[in-house]
Amino acid sequence: MNTTNKNYTIGVDIGGTKMSAVLFDGAKILADYTLATPKDNLEHFMIMLNALIEPLLDKARQDQVLVKNIGVGVAAILDYQEKKVLNAPNIPLLNGQKLLACLETRLNLNIRLDNDANCFTRAEAKIGAGKKYKNVFGITIGTGIGGAWWFNEEIYLGAHGGAGEPGWLVIDYQNGIRLEEAYHKLVQNNPASLAEEAYRGDILAEKFYQEFGHYLGINLANIVNIIDPEIIVLGGAVINSSDLFLSKTKKSMRSFIKSETARKIKVVKSSLGEKAGAIGAAMLFS
Amino acid sequence: MNTTNKNYTIGVDIGGTKMSAVLFDGAKILADYTLATPKDNLEHFMIMLNALIEPLLDKARQDQVLVKNIGVGVAAILDYQEKKVLNAPNIPLLNGQKLLACLETRLNLNIRLDNDANCFTRAEAKIGAGKKYKNVFGITIGTGIGGAWWFNEEIYLGAHGGAGEPGWLVIDYQNGIRLEEAYHKLVQNNPASLAEEAYRGDILAEKFYQEFGHYLGINLANIVNIIDPEIIVLGGAVINSSDLFLSKTKKSMRSFIKSETARKIKVVKSSLGEKAGAIGAAMLFS
Repeated sequence: MNTTNKNYTIGVDIGGTKMSAVLFDGAKILADYTLATPKDNLEHFMIMLNALIEPLLDKARQDQVLVKNIGVGVAAILDYQEKKVLNAPNIPLLNGQKLLACLETRLNLNIRLDNDANCFTRAEAKIGAGKKYKNVFGITIGTGIGGAWWFNEEIYLGAHGGAGEPGWLVIDYQNGIRLEEAYHKLVQNNPASLAEEAYRGDILAEKFYQEFGHYLGINLANIVNIIDPEIIVLGGAVINSSDLFLSKTKKSMRSFIKSETARKIKVVKSSLGEKAGAIGAAMLFS
Repeated sequence: MNTTNKNYTIGVDIGGTKMSAVLFDGAKILADYTLATPKDNLEHFMIMLNALIEPLLDKARQDQVLVKNIGVGVAAILDYQEKKVLNAPNIPLLNGQKLLACLETRLNLNIRLDNDANCFTRAEAKIGAGKKYKNVFGITIGTGIGGAWWFNEEIYLGAHGGAGEPGWLVIDYQNGIRLEEAYHKLVQNNPASLAEEAYRGDILAEKFYQEFGHYLGINLANIVNIIDPEIIVLGGAVINSSDLFLSKTKKSMRSFIKSETARKIKVVKSSLGEKAGAIGAAMLFS
């Protein structure tokens, strides 16, 4: 095979609720596939991951292109040296697993592993909403809240691999409550159904989204007061309901940024949508 | 003059309470001088600034070295392009002043201007407590709370010059209270006298410092969760009373850092002491 010059990569995004895969040629998605993330055991998880990837390998075969590389983004803290999942709060069956070794044994492909918010931010910075900018902070709001910073043409990992965790910023120092905790409490672990209620006119649901919008705004201001990016790109499923909170978010953000010039920062929605994470995973090879 | 090869620079640190100047040969302080910061009007301020610098120029003349350069750090938000003081909350007479132009007219020297916390952090990162590290976050706690990040061999300014403002991180999102506001309220604008009371055994004063220590610790955790530096260096007058709060700070910090590996971050006190800011200002020319 590989009778053509084409170079296909598979990108996989493993989130707390869904897992998606794309077949990517470096510029566009050729095929994509999504399944629910299995939560019962690792064996089932690996079978479904295979099932997710197989149709894309088929498509590549039809195009007579051999896929050599697969990038995987996962909603977890990773040990980048040991290629191990340290903590995946919403996919606990992966905790402590050497996911890379598991995958390499099953699939005869080169595999690279990364955090899902890093993948989202890489894709948005390189070909998405941040493509005109050099200093891009990405935030994903879905089952959990993740983040990453694109700076100097790469994801900034920090001195100990601990950078880019906006969900851990504390919203109430006295009681030690983090943004992610407040978010889970407000949306009761079901942001989509809460959004539906808010759209139907439920005042309490609307109020929850406004409160979340305010918290998110101060969170963005905190990020700006520390690193002052050019642009912040928001992604994750909750962004589909952004009209319930985004104007509140921007207003709260601006009133808590110290530097007048930094208040001009752009806050935009993902332009790649639900596939951003999987595209950014494929980009681990570009 | 300049009959020797010596290269002397003057560094000035203009804070909300005191202003200090050093004569610096690139490695050590040859002479230094401190005065109270005049608060009445710009004319008086400029006279006292001259009075601060003159003894150091005298010392250089004695050594037969001509001083050509003077770096000035000021506790203010600066417009780096216009070389203008935008906002100096604790030295309001400087607001809106083109300080660089004022100084150049009065002193026949090359002048560079910078934020005081940037100067502190530059000095500590290059020759102080952070000299063995490449990724250093500096925080000054004095009349106000300032900060700066030393990364890639320079102070990171951000996309709009608004980075490095830990005093603006919000400690209570619901009520919109920033760390600097909580600090001012806790120490009642007189940290030294509150520290004295705490050392004399005043339980309320001790409690205030413990509370401040807790807030500062979460603040450091927030910084780590965003940029994960190698080391955090604390400076400013309040650090003289660090035994009242620093162990509390470290404990609170560690419990709010997400990444296990990042929890190993070092938090240390300034090794250059009160002259760090002035040394870092002199280093604007090295």
